[in-house]
Amino acid sequence: MSISDTEFLKRLSDIVGSNGVIEDPARGPGPIARPRSTEDVSAIMKLCTEFSCPVVTVGGNTGLVMGTQRDGSELALSMELMREIEEIDVHSRTMTVQAGAVLQTVQETAEAHGFLYPLDLGGRGTATIGGNISTNAGGNRVIRYGMTRDQIISLEMVLADGTIIPMQGKSIKNNTGYDLKHLAIGGEGTLGVVTRAILRMRNFPISQNCAWVGVNDWESLTKLLRFMDAESSGTLSSFEVMWKEYYEAMTGDSTPYAPPVPHEYPFYVLIELQGSNQERDQARFEEIIVQAYESGLVADAAIAQSEAERKTMWGIRDDVTLLFENGFLDTKNMSFYSSDISLAITDMDDFVKEICEELPGADQNSYVFVFGHLGDGNLHVNPCAIGPDRPKSKEMGEIIYRAIRKRGGSISAEHGIGLKRKEYLNWTRSDNEIELMRQVKKVFDPNNLMNPGKIF
Amino acid sequence: MSISDTEFLKRLSDIVGSNGVIEDPARGPGPIARPRSTEDVSAIMKLCTEFSCPVVTVGGNTGLVMGTQRDGSELALSMELMREIEEIDVHSRTMTVQAGAVLQTVQETAEAHGFLYPLDLGGRGTATIGGNISTNAGGNRVIRYGMTRDQIISLEMVLADGTIIPMQGKSIKNNTGYDLKHLAIGGEGTLGVVTRAILRMRNFPISQNCAWVGVNDWESLTKLLRFMDAESSGTLSSFEVMWKEYYEAMTGDSTPYAPPVPHEYPFYVLIELQGSNQERDQARFEEIIVQAYESGLVADAAIAQSEAERKTMWGIRDDVTLLFENGFLDTKNMSFYSSDISLAITDMDDFVKEICEELPGADQNSYVFVFGHLGDGNLHVNPCAIGPDRPKSKEMGEIIYRAIRKRGGSISAEHGIGLKRKEYLNWTRSDNEIELMRQVKKVFDPNNLMNPGKIF
Repeated sequence: MSISDTEFLKRLSDIVGSNGVIEDPARGPGPIARPRSTEDVSAIMKLCTEFSCPVVTVGGNTGLVMGTQRDGSELALSMELMREIEEIDVHSRTMTVQAGAVLQTVQETAEAHGFLYPLDLGGRGTATIGGNISTNAGGNRVIRYGMTRDQIISLEMVLADGTIIPMQGKSIKNNTGYDLKHLAIGGEGTLGVVTRAILRMRNFPISQNCAWVGVNDWESLTKLLRFMDAESSGTLSSFEVMWKEYYEAMTGDSTPYAPPVPHEYPFYVLIELQGSNQERDQARFEEIIVQAYESGLVADAAIAQSEAERKTMWGIRDDVTLLFENGFLDTKNMSFYSSDISLAITDMDDFVKEICEELPGADQNSYVFVFGHLGDGNLHVNPCAIGPDRPKSKEMGEIIYRAIRKRGGSISAEHGIGLKRKEYLNWTRSDNEIELMRQVKKVFDPNNLMNPGKIF
Repeated sequence: MSISDTEFLKRLSDIVGSNGVIEDPARGPGPIARPRSTEDVSAIMKLCTEFSCPVVTVGGNTGLVMGTQRDGSELALSMELMREIEEIDVHSRTMTVQAGAVLQTVQETAEAHGFLYPLDLGGRGTATIGGNISTNAGGNRVIRYGMTRDQIISLEMVLADGTIIPMQGKSIKNNTGYDLKHLAIGGEGTLGVVTRAILRMRNFPISQNCAWVGVNDWESLTKLLRFMDAESSGTLSSFEVMWKEYYEAMTGDSTPYAPPVPHEYPFYVLIELQGSNQERDQARFEEIIVQAYESGLVADAAIAQSEAERKTMWGIRDDVTLLFENGFLDTKNMSFYSSDISLAITDMDDFVKEICEELPGADQNSYVFVFGHLGDGNLHVNPCAIGPDRPKSKEMGEIIYRAIRKRGGSISAEHGIGLKRKEYLNWTRSDNEIELMRQVKKVFDPNNLMNPGKIF
């Protein structure tokens, strides 16, 4: 059928009401259905199955791999009218939400009740819980609290044929058969529509202590991670490493950021601890940093003395787009590739060195910006090549993926596959695995209606 | 075919060698194959597919739900010759093991390298990593470190047709398609044979502080959990609650255990924190316990002053079989049901009260022993009825499961389904979910050869 079939559109608005179906070319081609309830979603999916209409479920559209791209033949199913926070259970420390709830709203609601919803990422003001689930979103606190997968106690899902798979309660323990929710988490909307979820909340941290350190060599860096984790007994919430080139660019003359420590070291780390008592934890944090300095693991250190200093440190880590805005890079004559890979910590130093050597045209007008979540084994390696003889972006990506494949790593640590990385999926997953995935998809979605063409 | 088919047995010993196939009636009926490598397992599975021979993979046999029961028609695949610890990676903090590695060996190997493998349970001296994975084993430290699922970075698995699904590296982050390992974890051996795994290790805790407290009412108990978790900033590793009847039985005159606090309260909790500095953490722990006492959350408390006192506290929590050995219970005239349920913390008090009221013959010769992992939403509710008019065990179990179903809980939090709880699976999982599970099983095991008849 065609998506503009009159009968289909009429029955669609019978389900969601006349203002439940909209068109908005700015958001992509074709109609957008806006259900208000799980029952709406179920009815829509039954209709789409009857009319063989493919469906792309849409959250906040902050994904980075073209996971919700549409070509005009699919119905967009937007969760924008399903944003309700349904319940806070302070005893069970859970929050029940509709999938369209915005991450930041969830974070703020948790905080208002004395809790932390620990997932955090740049798109927090727009990204939805359903989108976070479908991509198994990561972020800056995975080392302590895990990825989205670790925050989801239960979820409700609607299959392609309209079947509602109910939630499984509020307990973190449930060993009754296969844990199917783990397929939907990270499933990129290809198995069904996530409609509601029960989220795990943690206690809101009372103290936050943040430092910026320079490190002399790779061996010290990995030792420092272990040292910090051991000494902070469970309170280490971020250990964000930046390679020299990235740090120097972010704190150079043309940026608003003054360098917290001088430009003298090959590696820099933003370290943050979240605890329960500001005064005591700060004293302890300073003690640990001094110990790290005295034992040579840290070559130089600055401890944030105010919230403003802490924000500056996080800005240097997070504010990546700055590089493309301030004239530092000649973006008109630039090839750029943004990667999100994971590999064993043991292999990282060697991996980055290899990338830097192998990049063609790696001269004074080229850069490899490397930063990432060391404790999670996740790096963002972003090569920029500038000038008329620069290599293509795709070529730079493939140099990275070849080096990753050789080391048994993964081509996507936290962003997912979508359309953008689809052609590389079999570089780090075997054909047998991909075939199993395809067969699993057939169980959930026999007619290939759910986000078809994504992942594989 | 019959499992004693000469051709089948000959080809089996061609794969694993003559002492690779044994019979041992003490371990159940039929032959036991003992592979030495993943390749052996793959060859055995190809052979079993050719001969349509069902397979029951066997680890340490410490499961509690008859998950490896055999009837003589299946081949037992024992992992007892695949116990190797293959690698410790101190930088990535991972351990790579064969599935037959014994939990305690893994714990001790980790400790020898300064790490903690946090999963811990009574069967540690026999239980294998493969068995832990297949049952998604829990235990006493889930509140801090999670279940087995949370310790498994990668696993290798052999499917029914011999296909080897390889491991996925050492990084905790990998968003490349469906995360299929989460089906094998908790899959009870019905989807394939787990042959190797990469385990996540944590820093070995330098300090341990343990207390036993009495609590006056349910409200205080749930507040105490939140208070302890918040004040201990991430170091709370156990919060084990016991109801009055269990505590009094375990610390009565006929047991070796003196009660750490008097028999005056409805609830008791064993609280343990694991940190990085014994002196400092102990002072802080005592401070927190005093605060809890002063604010009324705790009515009485004893802090372990030695490893011996700590062991006594854990004995009272763990040494359940004592009740059946010391003449305290008339086990000859007793019905007993051991359950492992989970539900929202909010519903627990009411749930236990209902069970105690509804149990038929709940007179002075009957007991309901309740203890469990409050923070995980997991209780073990174990009714004993003594005397000629006692109800059947099954009847007691169904009273528990009815009360759980009503509250949206789960009939198995950590033990699994196996054969023992199979008839109750659909009490808390919907028919749609069970049908999905069956279809997923067909993808992995189209001829139903892997542990057939277990779970559903």
